[in-house]
Amino acid sequence: MITIAVDAMGGDHAPRPEVEGSVLAAREFNVRILLVGQPNVVRAELVKHSAPNLPIEIIPASEVITMNDHPAQAFRRKKDSSVHVAARLVHDSKADGMFSAGNTGAAMTAAKFILGTLESVDRVALAAPFPNARGGVSVLLDVGANVDSRPEHLVQFAVMGEVYYRATFGSRRPRVGLLSVGEEEIKGNVLTREVYTLLKKSPVHFVGNVEGGDLFSGSVDVIVCDGFVGNIALKICEGLAVSIFDLLKKSLKSSILSQVGAKLSQGAFKGLKKKIDYTEYGGAPLLGARGVCVIGHGRSNANAVKNAIRVAAGLARARINERIEQELSATAVPA
Amino acid sequence: MITIAVDAMGGDHAPRPEVEGSVLAAREFNVRILLVGQPNVVRAELVKHSAPNLPIEIIPASEVITMNDHPAQAFRRKKDSSVHVAARLVHDSKADGMFSAGNTGAAMTAAKFILGTLESVDRVALAAPFPNARGGVSVLLDVGANVDSRPEHLVQFAVMGEVYYRATFGSRRPRVGLLSVGEEEIKGNVLTREVYTLLKKSPVHFVGNVEGGDLFSGSVDVIVCDGFVGNIALKICEGLAVSIFDLLKKSLKSSILSQVGAKLSQGAFKGLKKKIDYTEYGGAPLLGARGVCVIGHGRSNANAVKNAIRVAAGLARARINERIEQELSATAVPA
Repeated sequence: MITIAVDAMGGDHAPRPEVEGSVLAAREFNVRILLVGQPNVVRAELVKHSAPNLPIEIIPASEVITMNDHPAQAFRRKKDSSVHVAARLVHDSKADGMFSAGNTGAAMTAAKFILGTLESVDRVALAAPFPNARGGVSVLLDVGANVDSRPEHLVQFAVMGEVYYRATFGSRRPRVGLLSVGEEEIKGNVLTREVYTLLKKSPVHFVGNVEGGDLFSGSVDVIVCDGFVGNIALKICEGLAVSIFDLLKKSLKSSILSQVGAKLSQGAFKGLKKKIDYTEYGGAPLLGARGVCVIGHGRSNANAVKNAIRVAAGLARARINERIEQELSATAVPA
Repeated sequence: MITIAVDAMGGDHAPRPEVEGSVLAAREFNVRILLVGQPNVVRAELVKHSAPNLPIEIIPASEVITMNDHPAQAFRRKKDSSVHVAARLVHDSKADGMFSAGNTGAAMTAAKFILGTLESVDRVALAAPFPNARGGVSVLLDVGANVDSRPEHLVQFAVMGEVYYRATFGSRRPRVGLLSVGEEEIKGNVLTREVYTLLKKSPVHFVGNVEGGDLFSGSVDVIVCDGFVGNIALKICEGLAVSIFDLLKKSLKSSILSQVGAKLSQGAFKGLKKKIDYTEYGGAPLLGARGVCVIGHGRSNANAVKNAIRVAAGLARARINERIEQELSATAVPA
């Protein structure tokens, strides 16, 4: 049975959604859960669920890293934090993968330093899945594990993104695009023009440059960029989606007629919300680490935690890292 | 009276919205319009409006640059295109500013080469105004006039963006932010960390790094970035907004109940659409050119054209370029 270590203390509402999501995952999927955190706090939450026969264990970790902690400092100072202990469980092969909805920077630091990086990988990359207009999923990477990437790093991101996409979303030959400012080969900056040339020669199914709007068009499956651009892109999407829904809510409350209308349309709004609900996609894997690591949004609810555990278990089962090593050793990337 | 040269042949539906928008602008604002294009085509459109006494003239240009033309090639080969002639009218002081809803690359090329760049400016920058959550406007620049900008270019963008914001949106001391991946000074890439240091020492009201979500939060007025990042950001916003509205429309049609609801809420949807309607903001000025140049979306309707003419006339009236020269000569930027 696949075992996933869950950082029970990380998210904004920890440990409630972490524990509930773990109970749901243990019930629905064939996984064993190690809930990592302050035992009394985690146990108090766990007893609220009728889960005595589920494969869930509590693993003690005395410290908690908050969203306000500085990632590198927290990593050095809080060595018995839940995310440290979760990463060590993976490192020591006591778990097949880990999930944290905590401080993203701290989770990435713990994964980089405790798990380390795969032999053929220079830099780990955070991959964010997005719902697209064709009803499928597109994946953007890197969304913030690195800035100032070199061309060969982006080629590695392309290969890792493709392997992850195949393992998680079942496409045989995902289409890989390079995020740029125009479709032609000459469009882009110094970095992307060099990456374009390298990707053309690589074994990935490279379809060329894509633009910002293609994140949602469904015209590509995997979109590669430097972490500086990817992180800004990710936060624009979150910010804009929230703004549009807020404005819509305010508009709908502006008259009695539209309030009645909104009530009648409720089902449709819920349908839409479910469609673009990030919790269905279950977090962002940190690809290239020596061990499976999935990172969730601080706001992750129980459903998001459950799905992130499903994704982590799936990546472990698919032996994603062996596949990444194989593909990368087959990809001749000039160092 | 301020005179604006309008590229009548540029947009997706030219010359209809260009001519209608010009008629509206000539009626509502105190401006004279030079409609530049194929005279018979433009005249056929103009006679549909009862505009015999309005200060509108047709200036002949025999060639048309389409959206499919390659900007640099079109610039070299179609020297009598409407955008060339419009730029020459500004260059020859026969117009105080120009507007084009045509091929953005071609319009930028024409402005760069025919108008040239201001004395103190190294690179022109395209500035895009956005509605924000506080009911105001935020401006992002550069959204695509350059890639691979150097730190001193971004400082110039900050100064030009601030002058434009003051002239157009009336704030006395616009807050300027630097688009990055975290608020702390150390967050960012090699470029933004250097820009941060320069902006701290500059006379602009620099409030520090901002993240992708701050485009809409209204926490800053002017957001500075390299054109590669800015162009991707702009296209993500357009793509995501369209995707959300499409999904919403589909959801609302999914049942009879929600269709009735949508009908009742119609007013609210229209209110929302108006609020986030780009046509109210009237195009993106190309700052730093030796002459006022405003560029619109290819989809610009008559309202967008009208407002772009209002913005161009306002920038000319405010003597934006003199103010940019003054501010930049006061800003000690290491070359």
